[in-house]
Amino acid sequence: MTRKIGIIGMGNVGAACAHYIVACGFADDLVLIDENEQKVQADALDFEDAMANLPYHTNITINDYHQLDDADVVISSVGHIKLLGGDHPNRFAELKPTGSDVANVAQKLKQTAFNGVLIVISNPNDVMTSLYQELTGLPKAQVIGTGTLLDGARMKRAVGKAFAVDPRSVTGYNLGEHGNSQFTAWSTVKVMDQPVADLAQQNGLDLAQINEDVRMGGFTVFNGKGYTNYGVSTAAVRLALAVINDAHSELPVSNYRSEYGVYLSYPAIIGRGGVLKQLQLDLPQDELDKLQASADYIKKNLQ
Amino acid sequence: MTRKIGIIGMGNVGAACAHYIVACGFADDLVLIDENEQKVQADALDFEDAMANLPYHTNITINDYHQLDDADVVISSVGHIKLLGGDHPNRFAELKPTGSDVANVAQKLKQTAFNGVLIVISNPNDVMTSLYQELTGLPKAQVIGTGTLLDGARMKRAVGKAFAVDPRSVTGYNLGEHGNSQFTAWSTVKVMDQPVADLAQQNGLDLAQINEDVRMGGFTVFNGKGYTNYGVSTAAVRLALAVINDAHSELPVSNYRSEYGVYLSYPAIIGRGGVLKQLQLDLPQDELDKLQASADYIKKNLQ
Amino acid sequence: MTRKIGIIGMGNVGAACAHYIVACGFADDLVLIDENEQKVQADALDFEDAMANLPYHTNITINDYHQLDDADVVISSVGHIKLLGGDHPNRFAELKPTGSDVANVAQKLKQTAFNGVLIVISNPNDVMTSLYQELTGLPKAQVIGTGTLLDGARMKRAVGKAFAVDPRSVTGYNLGEHGNSQFTAWSTVKVMDQPVADLAQQNGLDLAQINEDVRMGGFTVFNGKGYTNYGVSTAAVRLALAVINDAHSELPVSNYRSEYGVYLSYPAIIGRGGVLKQLQLDLPQDELDKLQASADYIKKNLQ
Amino acid sequence: MTRKIGIIGMGNVGAACAHYIVACGFADDLVLIDENEQKVQADALDFEDAMANLPYHTNITINDYHQLDDADVVISSVGHIKLLGGDHPNRFAELKPTGSDVANVAQKLKQTAFNGVLIVISNPNDVMTSLYQELTGLPKAQVIGTGTLLDGARMKRAVGKAFAVDPRSVTGYNLGEHGNSQFTAWSTVKVMDQPVADLAQQNGLDLAQINEDVRMGGFTVFNGKGYTNYGVSTAAVRLALAVINDAHSELPVSNYRSEYGVYLSYPAIIGRGGVLKQLQLDLPQDELDKLQASADYIKKNLQ
Repeated sequence: MTRKIGIIGMGNVGAACAHYIVACGFADDLVLIDENEQKVQADALDFEDAMANLPYHTNITINDYHQLDDADVVISSVGHIKLLGGDHPNRFAELKPTGSDVANVAQKLKQTAFNGVLIVISNPNDVMTSLYQELTGLPKAQVIGTGTLLDGARMKRAVGKAFAVDPRSVTGYNLGEHGNSQFTAWSTVKVMDQPVADLAQQNGLDLAQINEDVRMGGFTVFNGKGYTNYGVSTAAVRLALAVINDAHSELPVSNYRSEYGVYLSYPAIIGRGGVLKQLQLDLPQDELDKLQASADYIKKNLQ
Repeated sequence: MTRKIGIIGMGNVGAACAHYIVACGFADDLVLIDENEQKVQADALDFEDAMANLPYHTNITINDYHQLDDADVVISSVGHIKLLGGDHPNRFAELKPTGSDVANVAQKLKQTAFNGVLIVISNPNDVMTSLYQELTGLPKAQVIGTGTLLDGARMKRAVGKAFAVDPRSVTGYNLGEHGNSQFTAWSTVKVMDQPVADLAQQNGLDLAQINEDVRMGGFTVFNGKGYTNYGVSTAAVRLALAVINDAHSELPVSNYRSEYGVYLSYPAIIGRGGVLKQLQLDLPQDELDKLQASADYIKKNLQ
Repeated sequence: MTRKIGIIGMGNVGAACAHYIVACGFADDLVLIDENEQKVQADALDFEDAMANLPYHTNITINDYHQLDDADVVISSVGHIKLLGGDHPNRFAELKPTGSDVANVAQKLKQTAFNGVLIVISNPNDVMTSLYQELTGLPKAQVIGTGTLLDGARMKRAVGKAFAVDPRSVTGYNLGEHGNSQFTAWSTVKVMDQPVADLAQQNGLDLAQINEDVRMGGFTVFNGKGYTNYGVSTAAVRLALAVINDAHSELPVSNYRSEYGVYLSYPAIIGRGGVLKQLQLDLPQDELDKLQASADYIKKNLQ
Repeated sequence: MTRKIGIIGMGNVGAACAHYIVACGFADDLVLIDENEQKVQADALDFEDAMANLPYHTNITINDYHQLDDADVVISSVGHIKLLGGDHPNRFAELKPTGSDVANVAQKLKQTAFNGVLIVISNPNDVMTSLYQELTGLPKAQVIGTGTLLDGARMKRAVGKAFAVDPRSVTGYNLGEHGNSQFTAWSTVKVMDQPVADLAQQNGLDLAQINEDVRMGGFTVFNGKGYTNYGVSTAAVRLALAVINDAHSELPVSNYRSEYGVYLSYPAIIGRGGVLKQLQLDLPQDELDKLQASADYIKKNLQ
């Protein structure tokens, strides 16, 4: 009965999610929540000042958790990205303050009747997704982190640029933590139907450099403008649409993998129930090792 | 041959224009320009990190004025909105620094072969639109300010809310300066096919209050988040599409009216050539007086 | 919980509605129903053959009325347009066969739990809308005919062309029967903020000719291709979106007017509950007479 | 300078292309051409009757080849699909009458200044694409057939359905003739990152059956409604957007392969110049044999 999306945390990321949704008419009802009442009121009013010039109408309500009772999707974009800077940037710098916010949000969410899919953008992503699942008590399949859906888009951007090919025509995955221990699973990456490793060798291209570019992509954007928002919000909204459309799309997202005992990014089939099915990749040993190391790193920090 | 849009000034407004355009695939080529090289690079990279997850592809180039040679539309969103605050907010606080930026941009634009439509968001809007026209030497019809297209959207939002009606179903105009002297021409405003003045009287609604709400709308948003961007960028992109589609849409925008000898907001027919035709409203004397006062205020500040 | 639309009658009109919805991703679940099992299977398969190349995913089911239990909107496009031809074209030629189809569909719809908004395209439109309301027992507010939303679009096309203005920038209504007795309420029509009657006089334009063009518009298209589908399906989908978005849009549609005791086209405010509010126009006597005549004609044929 | 698309042949396929383009606002100028003047006039008028209810404006002109002088893309959808029926359906049944139409269109196109990309839907596709290239004298890179972009979408639909996965999440190609000798190159097809051949074996799925379903998909739709249009028009418009956006997308389309000396479907990188680059797949011998046979079949019929 019509599409309802909630966004919790109206910083640069949450606002960009809302803008994309409002501009394209993806939701009928949009619930915006932020501790900064003035900010969320200002954004809602600003969106309403756009309505007369937009093709689609969206009903916006603010700061009312009970509006989430019948939401299809809730996106959590609470965070403290300003802590990301410094000489050794690491999304774990946000761990304590964002963890505290997430605990607070999860408690309020638990008091609603919300039973849709919770999409987590908050960082460190895998830890926050895990925390949300635990604290809300929602089934694991219904709590998903955007994870390396963004890192994969960065990899596709970099590989696409190297070969003058549309990023959408590059296939393959980034796996593990959405953070410093993530990696491109080069064994899975193809462009022009060729393993990118082969093509890179033929063209004298350094994949390690591309991987580093991908890993550091967020920091480059962060250093340029003090935050990142368009890449990650686009990933989150794409994920939300896969849920709402019940599209059964294959997407690399942070989902709970029992063999590792943690949330980490690994491709899954996404539909109205959240994670409908988990893939089983045939990875070479070195990538399995990297994935294990990434899982260990997440697990250590989760504790 | 394909759609090309330039955006000069990648602050919150320019970035929101770019986001809307990229998210909806409205342009094939997008040229982003900003004095802050790091910021525009960061935004471009952030948009490219979204491409793998978007339905449409947009080619982005940065800080190259000669890419504007064959642009259909250039949007100027340079500005210094931070100066807007204070006890007596007035868009003219931006006059000097933004005027200096605009002079600089206009000079560079003049050195290109650009012969499309220049859409000005920069404030004070009517003065900056006038300045651009003068300095670029582009025909008056090809230089347009977003003007009260935004104020009108705010009026429609406020009237729509008062009567529980879609803002798109409210007709009528805000006229004059996009600033403190602008006003809702209530004689032109209808909702549910009734003059809103009659309906307001029947319902005990205070139109002066709505007008004040509209006039102060931007400041409310500004106070809540330190800038306004979604309303105005949506207006600018709608205007850009009217140009590119050659839609012949009637829109209230800042255009040069010879009877007042200044740029001010007044409805016009907008198409590929910019302002194709100017309307001639039948306004009552009190509204004509307000419009004259607004024109005088702009003229004074232009000098 | 996600958007669900049903379409009953997969002729040229129903198929064009479905195409628009699928192409733009307006629905998550689409239920297609037609007595011709082969035809509806073929269309569903053809749409599914488009899915890999479309940005949005839509889940299509066919010929299962119980899928309509939780639909937001059901569109009825059953009809026998082939009967429309001849020397004196009249939508009432379809009355008997389409009436029989509508009775059949209404009965099946009544056996479902459907409690959304039923949008009727079938002709003669006002009679079929009335019939559906009576036979399904749905509240009058939830059964709406597309009525003169199409005739109004034709009027806006014709007036827009005459004055070189975007049809979306023409305001005003066509009223009464969606059929030969419909008329443009010229007293309501404005373009460039001028009453079109004044402008027409100034420009030597014959409004009666435009009215005739509007009234005959459907027949012109019909004669050229044996059916009409794009104009009317666009009107129906716009109406469906106003319902689903709960947009509170003002649209001229066939709705039950108690003062006339029949369904006829007259502007109303449309939202999730269907007709949320009915307008009260200030029409001159000659237009009131035409409306009464149109109402009488519908009433006579309803019996 | 703005997007201009021409469509030649306004049967069910051309009309569906036009509908998709108009409904989504993909073009600013749309040129519709058909020998049946009444039909193309009726469609144009029908689209114009939709404009008042659509978010985007499109300027439509009809039957004027010189409007194609500066078109970005021209789509040829002339054809005689009614000849497709019978006990042994074969797209070559259309060869003579469509070939004659194509010769006629190509001659007229040659007299214009058109220098964009010509997208051919007409069947038998590879032969007609070849014919167009030869007769217009356009560079081979600028004449492309939709080819197995449709067959591939059908394969993705069938494989997606078998594994409950979004067709967009299935990768791989159909190659060769867009006709009876086309085949799914199973060696290239993956779903859930597994070779589909392995998964099929594990799940007792008969790939030969899926291939037959794909090959016969068009005929199933044809038998159900007398034509096919949504799948193929969506493929054509996707291809047109890849050109206009200069997206550098990898798509399997009919393009001239010098090693086979004919046009046949094989993936290529598509952008503003048409075919920007041709892929080189590593196919197993049995698929190479099938491709050779398909090429031989096309070559024989071309003569």
